Amino acid sequence: MADPQAVIPSKTDARRHHDPAVRGFASDNYAGAHPEVLAAIALANGGHQVAYGEDEYTDHLQRVMHSHFGQYAEAFPVFNGTGANVTALQAMTDRWGAVICAESAHINVDEGGAPERMAGLKLLTVPTPDGKLTPELIDRQAWGWEDEHRAMPQVVSITQNTELGTVYTPEEIRAICEHAHERGMKVHLDGARIANAAASLDVPMRTFTNEVGVDVLSYGGTKNGMLFGEAVVVLNPDAVRQMKHVRKMSMQLASKMRFVSVQLEALLARDLWLRNARHANSMAQRLAEGVREVDGVEILYPVQANAVFARLPHEVSLRLQKRHRFYFWDEAAGTVRWMCSFDTREEDVDGFLAALKDEMAR
Amino acid sequence: MADPQAVIPSKTDARRHHDPAVRGFASDNYAGAHPEVLAAIALANGGHQVAYGEDEYTDHLQRVMHSHFGQYAEAFPVFNGTGANVTALQAMTDRWGAVICAESAHINVDEGGAPERMAGLKLLTVPTPDGKLTPELIDRQAWGWEDEHRAMPQVVSITQNTELGTVYTPEEIRAICEHAHERGMKVHLDGARIANAAASLDVPMRTFTNEVGVDVLSYGGTKNGMLFGEAVVVLNPDAVRQMKHVRKMSMQLASKMRFVSVQLEALLARDLWLRNARHANSMAQRLAEGVREVDGVEILYPVQANAVFARLPHEVSLRLQKRHRFYFWDEAAGTVRWMCSFDTREEDVDGFLAALKDEMAR
Amino acid sequence: MADPQAVIPSKTDARRHHDPAVRGFASDNYAGAHPEVLAAIALANGGHQVAYGEDEYTDHLQRVMHSHFGQYAEAFPVFNGTGANVTALQAMTDRWGAVICAESAHINVDEGGAPERMAGLKLLTVPTPDGKLTPELIDRQAWGWEDEHRAMPQVVSITQNTELGTVYTPEEIRAICEHAHERGMKVHLDGARIANAAASLDVPMRTFTNEVGVDVLSYGGTKNGMLFGEAVVVLNPDAVRQMKHVRKMSMQLASKMRFVSVQLEALLARDLWLRNARHANSMAQRLAEGVREVDGVEILYPVQANAVFARLPHEVSLRLQKRHRFYFWDEAAGTVRWMCSFDTREEDVDGFLAALKDEMAR
Amino acid sequence: MADPQAVIPSKTDARRHHDPAVRGFASDNYAGAHPEVLAAIALANGGHQVAYGEDEYTDHLQRVMHSHFGQYAEAFPVFNGTGANVTALQAMTDRWGAVICAESAHINVDEGGAPERMAGLKLLTVPTPDGKLTPELIDRQAWGWEDEHRAMPQVVSITQNTELGTVYTPEEIRAICEHAHERGMKVHLDGARIANAAASLDVPMRTFTNEVGVDVLSYGGTKNGMLFGEAVVVLNPDAVRQMKHVRKMSMQLASKMRFVSVQLEALLARDLWLRNARHANSMAQRLAEGVREVDGVEILYPVQANAVFARLPHEVSLRLQKRHRFYFWDEAAGTVRWMCSFDTREEDVDGFLAALKDEMAR
Repeated sequence: MADPQAVIPSKTDARRHHDPAVRGFASDNYAGAHPEVLAAIALANGGHQVAYGEDEYTDHLQRVMHSHFGQYAEAFPVFNGTGANVTALQAMTDRWGAVICAESAHINVDEGGAPERMAGLKLLTVPTPDGKLTPELIDRQAWGWEDEHRAMPQVVSITQNTELGTVYTPEEIRAICEHAHERGMKVHLDGARIANAAASLDVPMRTFTNEVGVDVLSYGGTKNGMLFGEAVVVLNPDAVRQMKHVRKMSMQLASKMRFVSVQLEALLARDLWLRNARHANSMAQRLAEGVREVDGVEILYPVQANAVFARLPHEVSLRLQKRHRFYFWDEAAGTVRWMCSFDTREEDVDGFLAALKDEMAR
Repeated sequence: MADPQAVIPSKTDARRHHDPAVRGFASDNYAGAHPEVLAAIALANGGHQVAYGEDEYTDHLQRVMHSHFGQYAEAFPVFNGTGANVTALQAMTDRWGAVICAESAHINVDEGGAPERMAGLKLLTVPTPDGKLTPELIDRQAWGWEDEHRAMPQVVSITQNTELGTVYTPEEIRAICEHAHERGMKVHLDGARIANAAASLDVPMRTFTNEVGVDVLSYGGTKNGMLFGEAVVVLNPDAVRQMKHVRKMSMQLASKMRFVSVQLEALLARDLWLRNARHANSMAQRLAEGVREVDGVEILYPVQANAVFARLPHEVSLRLQKRHRFYFWDEAAGTVRWMCSFDTREEDVDGFLAALKDEMAR
Repeated sequence: MADPQAVIPSKTDARRHHDPAVRGFASDNYAGAHPEVLAAIALANGGHQVAYGEDEYTDHLQRVMHSHFGQYAEAFPVFNGTGANVTALQAMTDRWGAVICAESAHINVDEGGAPERMAGLKLLTVPTPDGKLTPELIDRQAWGWEDEHRAMPQVVSITQNTELGTVYTPEEIRAICEHAHERGMKVHLDGARIANAAASLDVPMRTFTNEVGVDVLSYGGTKNGMLFGEAVVVLNPDAVRQMKHVRKMSMQLASKMRFVSVQLEALLARDLWLRNARHANSMAQRLAEGVREVDGVEILYPVQANAVFARLPHEVSLRLQKRHRFYFWDEAAGTVRWMCSFDTREEDVDGFLAALKDEMAR
Repeated sequence: MADPQAVIPSKTDARRHHDPAVRGFASDNYAGAHPEVLAAIALANGGHQVAYGEDEYTDHLQRVMHSHFGQYAEAFPVFNGTGANVTALQAMTDRWGAVICAESAHINVDEGGAPERMAGLKLLTVPTPDGKLTPELIDRQAWGWEDEHRAMPQVVSITQNTELGTVYTPEEIRAICEHAHERGMKVHLDGARIANAAASLDVPMRTFTNEVGVDVLSYGGTKNGMLFGEAVVVLNPDAVRQMKHVRKMSMQLASKMRFVSVQLEALLARDLWLRNARHANSMAQRLAEGVREVDGVEILYPVQANAVFARLPHEVSLRLQKRHRFYFWDEAAGTVRWMCSFDTREEDVDGFLAALKDEMAR
């Protein structure tokens, strides 16, 4: 077999099709993987390991997860966020179950209908001012369990941090969990950006998950610096059934699972998850501070994690997009989303701000 | 960001949880990734690339695929084999469609019911002597298109090489495709081990796919040396609809797709796919030759790719499994499957044969 | 075989478990069947008829439907309203399709999640003031056809008359159809109470269906006086595919279909459908007129068909429910729904009004 | 409202589209309804009854079912056989469950893929010589409960009498139930023709259902003389969950359920079910006896219920079909199915036999 040194490409390798110096504000999914993550993969390579999750890395991952989410936590590595959410929600519900979520939830608006199509899940949605559910908002849909004409609410799903860049406090999540549990419902947390939320709150992740009653977690690794990979983390073993069968039939079972697990371990065994998240959040703060100095640009939600939502003149956005990549959030409303990631640099932010000021001044 | 050299772990890194010198004959999924594949990932890392498939590596992959499968080929990278199959079959069928396949097909017996549960697909199965369909066998299920009481046969799915280690000749596949097309059905080829088949036949992959009428292919990368990743390769654009939407709703859309695409490119841009497959096949030949010299052990099917199926005394299998990992195929029947992979070494085979002789002699 | 006269039970038959003199205002599903419908069933009985829709009555029904909905109309009898809607919507959409509807639509709130669970349909809902969609409201969800992250809007589904008892004018439906068609979407009309709408508008049903662009109709027979039975009526043959296969796999194919078809014929061949609907509507008008004279009871929506929605003191509703059956619409809001049906009599309405006045006066 | 006498059509009513004197041997679904069933419907008509199953007739039906199937039996009326089977099997399984059945089972071959499409059920099929499963045959699929790659066997489904007209003895069913229960599986019985089986065995239905361990039953009413309607009869309450929700979401909830329930009551409250079944069976016996006297026509399976399967020259079948309606069973094999029903008359059989002899003699 080749020497592992072969892993390192020359900086001028003709097989490189992109310019690694280019970064933008479109999405934390545009970033690559953290070098420590790549190193971990190389470490796990070589030799044979049992496939489909019976390997040493997946076993070790469980202990790492216990250190974050308590002794009952069990991680089920999967491929992507949609897969994590749909797998988790299937294992938490019966065929007749429904899931209460914010109208803006990723599971409702950004997964191509996967929850409905793959899992037959009915989503009972509630409009929210800032992407966050509350007991009162949940109650708009939390009724009718005995009524066969109504899909039966079995799970409340929240996103931390939310799709609008806002962050629930631990107390807010506790109140949701208590409210849900009193009504016989379980709580799922879509943690596609859970590390950013923890960094924002400056607390361990357990503080707003298992310690306040969250039952099952979609742990997000991709945006936090992995090549790919997430995990369904079961915090309350009574909240799910047959996770392994559900993961397999949901097409989310990796044969060479060691390579998902070791990436999660690379993030979570020490502090890489937190370093990456803090860095992304601080870049968003830097960006927001700069934006606040620009007349005519309005920041829309509290900037609590790695996203800045703003409203600015439509033609300015169009011109700015020619210089830096980012997306409209609601083009008709003139709102945009600027995302920072673990590899965003100060000079990226400063350059973007300069371009924004420049375009606003034209 | 850290220096890419950080990717290389020390050989005694405490974070390594396994012994990279241990290999077995249980599954080609037990192997890790080829170093050239890891190197390619490192190459694609750094900087920002558009997520969800609009990156340069996925674009480049299309040209690589054209060189193998002709100018109409389009690759849709996905995560795993179940995902590739279920995505492909959904895009090829209507809600009322059914898929004719061998009773032993992976989609029928090894995917936890994913085709039925996720896609609502009815599989119309046929028993076969050796895992291979024929026009005659297909006709047992290819009827009743007008009958609403019967699921409508719309696709014939074959596996190359088959789950029993046998390999279709190009002419056999051509006959199946002509037969299917004459009856208005499309042909899907599950190519989880397509490279092994090409190596076995000693022909380009196109010779038994697009050139003989296969419409859609599940291209298998994982067993051929990738960390993870497969691709639905559409050979006949008229055979599918809305592949991108189907892939997304099937939870198979990678956000950082460049890392799947660059692995496929690493295999396919030059000859790594073929080197890996030839090596695995030759190790299986070496193994089979050795086994044929052992009295009391019967080889069950022609050894045409990287699998050896054998029958031997049950207690011998049990003792042998304590020394080398492998699986029973049908424990009640006393049959076992021994798989070779791209990283199997001659000494692995020879050591295994010695152990087999030893245990047979006790 | 027994003489058909045996069909007639004695008025004191011990096998009768209910009092046929009791009627209420809970639902038009509480009523039985019209005697002319029963007579038609008896007429179709005896001898053998081809099962599953190849019978003379189903054939004849097509001609009856042509007289109402034009020469392209084709009726596919089914069992119930949920079945009609889910069958129609499946035949109108692809696997990746979504349906835009009012938040209050029956398919969204009253079918136990059948569209999502049985058909994998994503419903894209819009809040409405009165249960009616408009082009502007549709546009809140009619976007993103190219975006694989978003379920693809393929159908707009409206209900005539709506779940809130309001009735679209033909021009309103024409505007919706034009708007939808311009955007490549089809229009489905849930006509669970279509006869009441036609009676209310005093126009033929074609005036607000095929003549203004509706593609597919769920024709409601049960509430209009049948024992059971509805029909998917395809007005635009290009708007659906494989209706027969979709109906069968949706568990909506009646073996002895003649008995569904002859009931529909009984309603539609002459004017029974209209007599029944006009009567129910006029009883609702009588009821509304009486209610308007009662201080403290507020009528909520225009009374255009056979439903009266009202707000009154909660404790009055509770007392009144002990005397006459009806349902809360939104108990927390103190609103109720009073339904009239084809068999509601003037004395039923007057008795109910007297009871209402009596309870309001306490 | 009209006088109930209006139910009776004149024998020369122009609205009659068929000749009630014509009967054939194609299917017991070609027959109409028994007059006593129509009389029962008329009896249940008039006045208001709570919709969706809270009516007096559905309540009374429970007591009737207790008399047949014991005190734990609970009936859930549904529309048709596919609906009964898919509803029952969903309520008996988890999302990951699979159903073992004969390859010839109606759920596998004649329901348009409804179990797979609507319920995501994986059917694990076994070829049988005569349509009957045995413990040995079940064991071909009853394994691998812990294996996530395999759909989990949770239910054994048998058909009584089978699709091939054969009848299980009570002891055969007991053996199946014990075998299934020992392995943690439940037993479903598709009783589309259960009355014919009871008549054939000359025992009460309980003798081969609840008394020998069957958990859930699809009770067939349509072929036994109803207009339409079947019931899921839960014999073991622990074998299902949330039947009402499952029935609703499966589009099988009748609004005016009294009209399904009273038909079932008409069959089961006294002996109409048995009279009808015995008559159909005896006509099949008469037919079989006559056929045995015809040289060149071979009867294929034991004639134990109301079906006769035969092999005869293909051209004779074609000529005979021009005189009497019936279906090929396997046209290539030259086999046909002749069904008798509750309304088959001796002269129908004799006329058919005469025609058969006539055509065989040509």
